[in-house]
Amino acid sequence: MPASITLNEIELLDKNDPLADFRSEFVLEDGLVYLDGNSLGPAPKAVFEKIETVMREEWAGGLIRSWNDADWFKLTDILGDRLAACLGAVKGELVVTDSTSINIFKALHAAAGLRPERNVIVAEGAGFPTDLYMLEGALSTLPGYSARLEGVDGDHLVDLIDQSVAVVLVNHVDYKTGRLRDMAAITARAHEKGALVIWDLCHTAGVVPVDLNGSRADFAIGCSYKYLNGGPGAPAFIYVAKQHQAAAKQPLSGWWGHANPFAMQREYQPDASIRKFLCGTQSVLALQAMDVGLEIFERADKHAMRQKSMQLTDLFVALVKEHCGDYGLKLISPEDAAERGSQISFSCEHGYEIMQALIERNVIGDFRAPDILRFGFAPLYVRYADVRDAVFILKDILDTNFWKEPRFSKRSAVT
Amino acid sequence: MPASITLNEIELLDKNDPLADFRSEFVLEDGLVYLDGNSLGPAPKAVFEKIETVMREEWAGGLIRSWNDADWFKLTDILGDRLAACLGAVKGELVVTDSTSINIFKALHAAAGLRPERNVIVAEGAGFPTDLYMLEGALSTLPGYSARLEGVDGDHLVDLIDQSVAVVLVNHVDYKTGRLRDMAAITARAHEKGALVIWDLCHTAGVVPVDLNGSRADFAIGCSYKYLNGGPGAPAFIYVAKQHQAAAKQPLSGWWGHANPFAMQREYQPDASIRKFLCGTQSVLALQAMDVGLEIFERADKHAMRQKSMQLTDLFVALVKEHCGDYGLKLISPEDAAERGSQISFSCEHGYEIMQALIERNVIGDFRAPDILRFGFAPLYVRYADVRDAVFILKDILDTNFWKEPRFSKRSAVT
Repeated sequence: MPASITLNEIELLDKNDPLADFRSEFVLEDGLVYLDGNSLGPAPKAVFEKIETVMREEWAGGLIRSWNDADWFKLTDILGDRLAACLGAVKGELVVTDSTSINIFKALHAAAGLRPERNVIVAEGAGFPTDLYMLEGALSTLPGYSARLEGVDGDHLVDLIDQSVAVVLVNHVDYKTGRLRDMAAITARAHEKGALVIWDLCHTAGVVPVDLNGSRADFAIGCSYKYLNGGPGAPAFIYVAKQHQAAAKQPLSGWWGHANPFAMQREYQPDASIRKFLCGTQSVLALQAMDVGLEIFERADKHAMRQKSMQLTDLFVALVKEHCGDYGLKLISPEDAAERGSQISFSCEHGYEIMQALIERNVIGDFRAPDILRFGFAPLYVRYADVRDAVFILKDILDTNFWKEPRFSKRSAVT
Repeated sequence: MPASITLNEIELLDKNDPLADFRSEFVLEDGLVYLDGNSLGPAPKAVFEKIETVMREEWAGGLIRSWNDADWFKLTDILGDRLAACLGAVKGELVVTDSTSINIFKALHAAAGLRPERNVIVAEGAGFPTDLYMLEGALSTLPGYSARLEGVDGDHLVDLIDQSVAVVLVNHVDYKTGRLRDMAAITARAHEKGALVIWDLCHTAGVVPVDLNGSRADFAIGCSYKYLNGGPGAPAFIYVAKQHQAAAKQPLSGWWGHANPFAMQREYQPDASIRKFLCGTQSVLALQAMDVGLEIFERADKHAMRQKSMQLTDLFVALVKEHCGDYGLKLISPEDAAERGSQISFSCEHGYEIMQALIERNVIGDFRAPDILRFGFAPLYVRYADVRDAVFILKDILDTNFWKEPRFSKRSAVT
């Protein structure tokens, strides 16, 4: 991507974008540059009518009968099978349920249980905090196990994997830097040592091609409220490779995971399928809203998405370097688009204040402590022109030394 | 309640019902007798506009900003404080989050951790299955602990509580029989022996007066999709008495329970408050829908609800005895209304087929294996006339010996 790209060339990129039509399927007000789809995806226009119908016809009209008649009881599986097909998995390997955190707990227990002679779990010291927090919680229920952290116990994740390691919990894309891990290579390395891998797909599902079966992934978890546009707090998912399902056990053994939930038996008997990873009753509204975002993703060409995503992020980096190069923004994402997800992060002084000023000017990214500006580029609705606009607004903000103004006094960030 | 109550007398009961106006706040089609609010409450009419607004203004319009601007991040607490006030608890003792099953797991671990020198958990052998399944799951993560079950290890719950018992998990109302437990008495008995009690309020929250603080309850969990009319799969809640919160720990230690979730620290540091019982990101749509049902309950006179509930169930029992007495329906709910929740259950042969026939005639209750007809009486929308109609339709069905017809061949129940 040449730094000196012209306005005409940017217009041409948008004009020739094979994904351009998808933008009109989302609510995005004029003038808004939304670069935070890595935190919360926008609302698909079809979601309003869908949820209205679900509420009026299925809940209000069908009442309790809708658990059967509207397939509510199978939504976790129906959505799961569809998402599986988008992520390189097969029918019966994935369910949409609970939160990412809860699913990490299930996956850690299940994976550890499949390697009972081992007692170490490897994770990233700089991984998404909830991954580490859930690992702590899981360890408190796995006596004798310990954690080994990249960046704490060693520099490189794969070097930490030896014959004592039962499980590796790793983010496919790092939430801070956007660095993309090689799923197939890390999984192969772990398998060589006899360990299993849990992939956290929160920052790749819906935007970066994922081939779970092709990468021989054992477990995966992720959320649907970021690039899958499932709605705020939309349900998460868990994938368990077929070959592990028969032997896998997890302790959140609620009635939805029972082989015969309506037999009302006293003893828990796990379902033989991926349903053993379900626990309690799931929100139908949340699942049905997620359906709408997923349906859009299903229709999109995944290869075209990746190509556009790489071009958008390349363009952003090039333009920031060209126009904002003097302001000390430090690229902490990989330079090579092939090595990152659909996200660009810069660290810089006054990062919090800069992001607040961007948001005031309708360029929405987010800030992550202590000093990181994060920008997500969702190829289904971000245009090349948005990238250009964002950079020129950023430049304008930086040019003014705005952070000396009293109204930008530091306050705590909540999201 | 006299068995030979006249039509006029029933009309008078409805006319004088102080709660009569609440019915119009719910969608209930003409001719429908909905006696399944103990399984899924009907839709409040206000929920459609509320969710439309949440989707359009908060999600589509506010996007990521709504986590702060629309208080999304505090919904678990805002709803929790409001529900707490309805259940005899105080601000900061309850959060609305996750599923009942997940919350049972948290409560079992937290309660067990507060009694580290003990290793037995008492529960009901005939309790709601997911309570028992989650107990099994929790035991698999609590080495050295064992369960002691009422109906298996002894006839009476309280007799099972001795100095080895750390925790008692008990349903306030039994899902099958509708029997109501004395919360204050059982809690006092457990406390005498040094044990803590977890109350499952799934079948009482929203319909039977609950006084958590007055009963000195330690923990409670429950759902909001039954008598709280929060929507299908609406979020559950967990209550932890103030005095236990500082010392309580639970292993589902996700980022929402962190003292400073956006500091993105490596180590988990639980929030000092009830928020330590949160785990992962929650569905905003589910929480906002639950808000609507809760708001109705907040306005209702709880004493009047209990009075009407007892009268409705008394009337149903009396009329069934009078008109259907010859058909072998056996009342398995307590005869005395003071000893039961807002539910009447009969066991009988051909129970499944009878319930199917009732549903075909627009009288909706539910069936629980092996032979139980359950009828829930939600005083906010069930009328005395509904009770009469239900009994006469039931009588009509029984009179025909309908189950000999081939179309009623047994098939598996799903709800």
